[in-house]
Amino acid sequence: MKSGVIAIAYETVTDARGGLPLLAPMSEVAGRMAIQVGAHCLEKEQGGTGILLGGVPGVPAAKVVILGGGVSGTNAARMAMGVEAYVTVIDKSLPRLYELDMQFGAQLHTLFSTVENIEREVIAADLLIGAVLVPGAAAPKLVSRELVRAMRPGSVIVDIAIDQGGCCETSRPTTHAAPTYVEEGVVHYCVTNMPGAVARTSAVALNNATLPFVEAIADKGWRRALADDPHLRDGLNVSRGRVTHPAVARDLGLSLTSAERAIAE
Amino acid sequence: MKSGVIAIAYETVTDARGGLPLLAPMSEVAGRMAIQVGAHCLEKEQGGTGILLGGVPGVPAAKVVILGGGVSGTNAARMAMGVEAYVTVIDKSLPRLYELDMQFGAQLHTLFSTVENIEREVIAADLLIGAVLVPGAAAPKLVSRELVRAMRPGSVIVDIAIDQGGCCETSRPTTHAAPTYVEEGVVHYCVTNMPGAVARTSAVALNNATLPFVEAIADKGWRRALADDPHLRDGLNVSRGRVTHPAVARDLGLSLTSAERAIAE
Amino acid sequence: MKSGVIAIAYETVTDARGGLPLLAPMSEVAGRMAIQVGAHCLEKEQGGTGILLGGVPGVPAAKVVILGGGVSGTNAARMAMGVEAYVTVIDKSLPRLYELDMQFGAQLHTLFSTVENIEREVIAADLLIGAVLVPGAAAPKLVSRELVRAMRPGSVIVDIAIDQGGCCETSRPTTHAAPTYVEEGVVHYCVTNMPGAVARTSAVALNNATLPFVEAIADKGWRRALADDPHLRDGLNVSRGRVTHPAVARDLGLSLTSAERAIAE
Amino acid sequence: MKSGVIAIAYETVTDARGGLPLLAPMSEVAGRMAIQVGAHCLEKEQGGTGILLGGVPGVPAAKVVILGGGVSGTNAARMAMGVEAYVTVIDKSLPRLYELDMQFGAQLHTLFSTVENIEREVIAADLLIGAVLVPGAAAPKLVSRELVRAMRPGSVIVDIAIDQGGCCETSRPTTHAAPTYVEEGVVHYCVTNMPGAVARTSAVALNNATLPFVEAIADKGWRRALADDPHLRDGLNVSRGRVTHPAVARDLGLSLTSAERAIAE
Amino acid sequence: MKSGVIAIAYETVTDARGGLPLLAPMSEVAGRMAIQVGAHCLEKEQGGTGILLGGVPGVPAAKVVILGGGVSGTNAARMAMGVEAYVTVIDKSLPRLYELDMQFGAQLHTLFSTVENIEREVIAADLLIGAVLVPGAAAPKLVSRELVRAMRPGSVIVDIAIDQGGCCETSRPTTHAAPTYVEEGVVHYCVTNMPGAVARTSAVALNNATLPFVEAIADKGWRRALADDPHLRDGLNVSRGRVTHPAVARDLGLSLTSAERAIAE
Amino acid sequence: MKSGVIAIAYETVTDARGGLPLLAPMSEVAGRMAIQVGAHCLEKEQGGTGILLGGVPGVPAAKVVILGGGVSGTNAARMAMGVEAYVTVIDKSLPRLYELDMQFGAQLHTLFSTVENIEREVIAADLLIGAVLVPGAAAPKLVSRELVRAMRPGSVIVDIAIDQGGCCETSRPTTHAAPTYVEEGVVHYCVTNMPGAVARTSAVALNNATLPFVEAIADKGWRRALADDPHLRDGLNVSRGRVTHPAVARDLGLSLTSAERAIAE
Repeated sequence: MKSGVIAIAYETVTDARGGLPLLAPMSEVAGRMAIQVGAHCLEKEQGGTGILLGGVPGVPAAKVVILGGGVSGTNAARMAMGVEAYVTVIDKSLPRLYELDMQFGAQLHTLFSTVENIEREVIAADLLIGAVLVPGAAAPKLVSRELVRAMRPGSVIVDIAIDQGGCCETSRPTTHAAPTYVEEGVVHYCVTNMPGAVARTSAVALNNATLPFVEAIADKGWRRALADDPHLRDGLNVSRGRVTHPAVARDLGLSLTSAERAIAE
Repeated sequence: MKSGVIAIAYETVTDARGGLPLLAPMSEVAGRMAIQVGAHCLEKEQGGTGILLGGVPGVPAAKVVILGGGVSGTNAARMAMGVEAYVTVIDKSLPRLYELDMQFGAQLHTLFSTVENIEREVIAADLLIGAVLVPGAAAPKLVSRELVRAMRPGSVIVDIAIDQGGCCETSRPTTHAAPTYVEEGVVHYCVTNMPGAVARTSAVALNNATLPFVEAIADKGWRRALADDPHLRDGLNVSRGRVTHPAVARDLGLSLTSAERAIAE
Repeated sequence: MKSGVIAIAYETVTDARGGLPLLAPMSEVAGRMAIQVGAHCLEKEQGGTGILLGGVPGVPAAKVVILGGGVSGTNAARMAMGVEAYVTVIDKSLPRLYELDMQFGAQLHTLFSTVENIEREVIAADLLIGAVLVPGAAAPKLVSRELVRAMRPGSVIVDIAIDQGGCCETSRPTTHAAPTYVEEGVVHYCVTNMPGAVARTSAVALNNATLPFVEAIADKGWRRALADDPHLRDGLNVSRGRVTHPAVARDLGLSLTSAERAIAE
Repeated sequence: MKSGVIAIAYETVTDARGGLPLLAPMSEVAGRMAIQVGAHCLEKEQGGTGILLGGVPGVPAAKVVILGGGVSGTNAARMAMGVEAYVTVIDKSLPRLYELDMQFGAQLHTLFSTVENIEREVIAADLLIGAVLVPGAAAPKLVSRELVRAMRPGSVIVDIAIDQGGCCETSRPTTHAAPTYVEEGVVHYCVTNMPGAVARTSAVALNNATLPFVEAIADKGWRRALADDPHLRDGLNVSRGRVTHPAVARDLGLSLTSAERAIAE
Repeated sequence: MKSGVIAIAYETVTDARGGLPLLAPMSEVAGRMAIQVGAHCLEKEQGGTGILLGGVPGVPAAKVVILGGGVSGTNAARMAMGVEAYVTVIDKSLPRLYELDMQFGAQLHTLFSTVENIEREVIAADLLIGAVLVPGAAAPKLVSRELVRAMRPGSVIVDIAIDQGGCCETSRPTTHAAPTYVEEGVVHYCVTNMPGAVARTSAVALNNATLPFVEAIADKGWRRALADDPHLRDGLNVSRGRVTHPAVARDLGLSLTSAERAIAE
Repeated sequence: MKSGVIAIAYETVTDARGGLPLLAPMSEVAGRMAIQVGAHCLEKEQGGTGILLGGVPGVPAAKVVILGGGVSGTNAARMAMGVEAYVTVIDKSLPRLYELDMQFGAQLHTLFSTVENIEREVIAADLLIGAVLVPGAAAPKLVSRELVRAMRPGSVIVDIAIDQGGCCETSRPTTHAAPTYVEEGVVHYCVTNMPGAVARTSAVALNNATLPFVEAIADKGWRRALADDPHLRDGLNVSRGRVTHPAVARDLGLSLTSAERAIAE
């Protein structure tokens, strides 16, 4: 802050619908990756049950249960259906379940989020994807240690929500170098920054998302660009020594300057 | 037989692959109908559990289990997938399961026919379709009374194989006027001649199948038509007082005249 | 009212888009059911023409015409396509037809609602689904008695809009015990409360929809829950002897107390 | 023949199923092209009715009727479904219709070939594709002049069978330079050698099909290659002055030498 | 203007989302047509490379590149996928690409609009569709003459944006009578008013879109209809000698009367 | 052999079409697994390029090239399409390519096997699957070391054919414990017995395939079972000290006793 830097944070830039456009591509990548890492963890050598997600003719497919039908959950569901697993998405928003049902039809099983539904499905799951992300908040702990213990040994949990604490009580952050651990007999994959594994795809995805903002700043200068675009302005966290984002000011116990005023100076 | 009639039986005309081309359309009709009658029987008023085959977003679909992946079983599976049920076909031929898997992809669950698989699936079924037909033989009793008793009360069995005795121990023939009965708590639909309910569709389907043979007989006379076409000749059962089909002769204890000879006379 | 009850009516709770979230699941159920009851009514034994909705190879499918492309119409269309009928949806909103076209592609035929289009399609229909529902108003009578008379004898009308009077001049309410009658040669299915036939599915669907409101009331008490949530507040019809919903007050000729004020007391 | 040439004709090389593998790629190309030329002919400027095959939301699609469900008919059907027309294939083989139905599902309408079906469908067609090809024989004239006259003015006929005389009474060969003419008010496209219009695609397709034979001849010499492969041998028409193909000998009134003997000399 | 006419212009009527509902159907038609005219232009006789868009088994499909993922671009993409080409849509809106990806899945390739992406894809394209339309503004010239020169000779450009100047530097308006010209070795199809070629479909589509407005004017009189509906009012350009649309007034240098006032007079 | 054992070898049991029914399920498993191991190898941490097979909206998918369209190649293609990669299958049989094209439509790119096609596609591949298996023979070395060298560094080869020597010059057998190595900059996964990684799925698949034979032997005794079933008899390799399979006798230089005779003794 003392350096006088103008700091714009990816994760606080907004869009017209209240979404976070610079985070969405990473959720897409993480969601799609979740199935390929889950399939890998299910292999014998990784400690998994040795089940193939899609089965083969005459042999049942594996059950993939996805907690949360947002961007990352939807992308995970799409890949899981693609490899022909039996896929269930659990979400607490009925309108969202309706959208998913219209989008994917009968191949996707949608389930309303109740305690009973979560328990029954988690216990039956071969692969559980934690994709319940609440922007700017800790992920809710939907899956207790007891529930993990009730899962079949060698089952797999991929907790995409780990960057916000994870949605399983047994989840703790891991790295690409040592991505998994076994707890309560269940293989956990809880790598923070999952998209780093497919850096080439992720870099292009992120560049696409940031390019319009970068061009605006390059064309007009940061001041004008932030003045013209309230969503980019939401991304301004620090401006020449002043904190301009309410959450940052609150968390650090510093006084807040409005972004508008900081720009105008 | 005394009337001197030339009798050609639909059910013994063959085709180049050993199939029965004049029966196939009726198997298609019965298979497709099986799902609509099953859906109807599941309604509360009919004694069913009151479950909708496809569910709705957030509510699970019903489980449809189909015994046999032949013509009628495949057509039943297709309709059941169409109404978005969770559909499993059990067959004892792996190559047939492979074909079904290639045909329908992940939406259809294929399972190899073992005693364990049949038991587990039948018990879990909301709607069970019996479609195990062995041409010219009694259907195998794959589902015992005990297994029916283990099904959920209000579940439904549609036994397409009823014309050949049915493939459930509890199946007995019914009519379109009184199509169902409840036994061991399970609603049974065992109407013989199911295609009669959709007579208009069935009549056209049957006409299409018989037309080439009818035209051949009309054009060439029955003698020439039967002489030219071995498959049609297989259909000849009685010719001017003589029995020309081995199975008929055997079942009635009459002496057999070869079809070739009967035609030549 | 004298009992001092706090009455919240399902059908007046709203959502952010002006929809009726507690009615939507029942529209989904009714729409999906409409095809299975229509298929059943087309059977010979029920007075129908004896046509199978999807036909079989070489035999044409039946024509299903759906008036209205809202929630129930869309769900009916989806099931009708699933059983491989020839399906046309008629709606007066071009943007809605565009959405349906994008959703379902070439398999669904979309048609703009004009008098000519309705007449031509209704006359050609084997199965007509009335799904024109205007929330809180009588359904428009789009199909006159003359038009019904022009339909093929044995054709079927399923009028989902019957709870609001039906959209055919010949429609009158029936029950699950006696669901159909024939008028002008056409089988009418006009059961009010269609979802009752699949009570198990309907109950879960309704519970899912109401659960968030029930939890809010249980957690916060009705007063706070209604104060916090304007959509739930729209559902308040009667509060300790006072009428709080404009339509109810108007229809009963009673004086109106605003919901806000009733809560605050 | 006097030149002593060894002449192998594409159109008489056979395969194990009695097909003509060197002609199949050209049937695929012609079938797929038939829809794009048909769409073009339907434009106003070309004399067509000015209808877009797939319609748009709210406006009906055009009717495409395809006579014959063989290689070219199937490929035409696939493209016609692709552009979202309403597509009907008429064929006289029920097993073939069953295959097409399994292949394409409800989007393709299959109809058994009867005089009534042909008449009704041709009259209703916006675009009629003639794809009835009998190898080595004149195409049957399924569509009479009167039937063409009964079609809507500005409708279009693309007669792929023109190389074998066409399957419409009004068809006569045209060229890529002047591809169409109007007769009985209907635009006819009857270009012989349709694949020439997409020469680049056709050349590669043909090379693929001939390559294995060319390689065999190059590797082993023609004598050995023909001796080893009975299908290639079927292609031998003339060998150093002697006619070796029965049909050629018959049509030209020359004496026949068996291919085996010609090779052995 | 002197005639005292009340002039409502199709292209300035708006809808609730800021769209232009009376232009959308024409964009749909043009987008769908673009592929059939492009396929035609690729034929040898038209100067094209002689490539079939969908290829055949064993022979690669053509590459179709679509600039712009709006209404016309999306409809073009859908038809191009339908004829089994390899299709890429380039758009500068990531949310739009996400929608297209959800809509069409893996068969459609979506690419973010950068200078590098456009260059690489245009050079590789067999068929380039220009579908970048900015309502009420000249289309941006995304494709320079040099880039056209770098395309394969015989490739094809269909510039749907030609009514607004086209999005290629080499595009200039043509007519249905002489629809194409070759420039830099590339066939250009730049017909203004493309939908005129399928006049029958276009007329119905346009009638559907205008009907609600026409009915409102017929029922209520123009004054009341325009007073009630702000979107229709946006269409009022001239009212009894006064200019009521800002853009018209500005472009013609005339004084502006507000529509509200003109109606009230 | 001295033990007097009756040895039936899985890999020599045949079926009616000349296939190897006890090997097919393992080819299915290996083919489906190939994509998940390939996706894993493409991750940065494994030495791959860090590309996600399916990309995300706006970012291109990876190219998967599959050599061979048999059972394992087809299953690999299906999974690769499922994860939304750009998939090309190269095969030297045009009829097989036609089948694959009919099966999978436009999403699968089929290419005829020529030297040029293989070179161009392998160089462009992100993931190369070797699935060229000739039963009972060494796999052909379709990919030379030079060609591997021309691939992008960090690309991946999964050589399913490794059990028969592999179809790349650079392939050498690896194990599940150390599944990959890098050669010429390309990550190679050449695990023999790939299905071992998903042992649970593989075991069930294999049991399904062998069950009918096991039951026959259990029911009838080995002698009768082998006498009745020529396909099972083909599996007999050694019978009480005598070699009964031609290939085994030839390879070991032992004298051959016919299976029929060995059974009869």
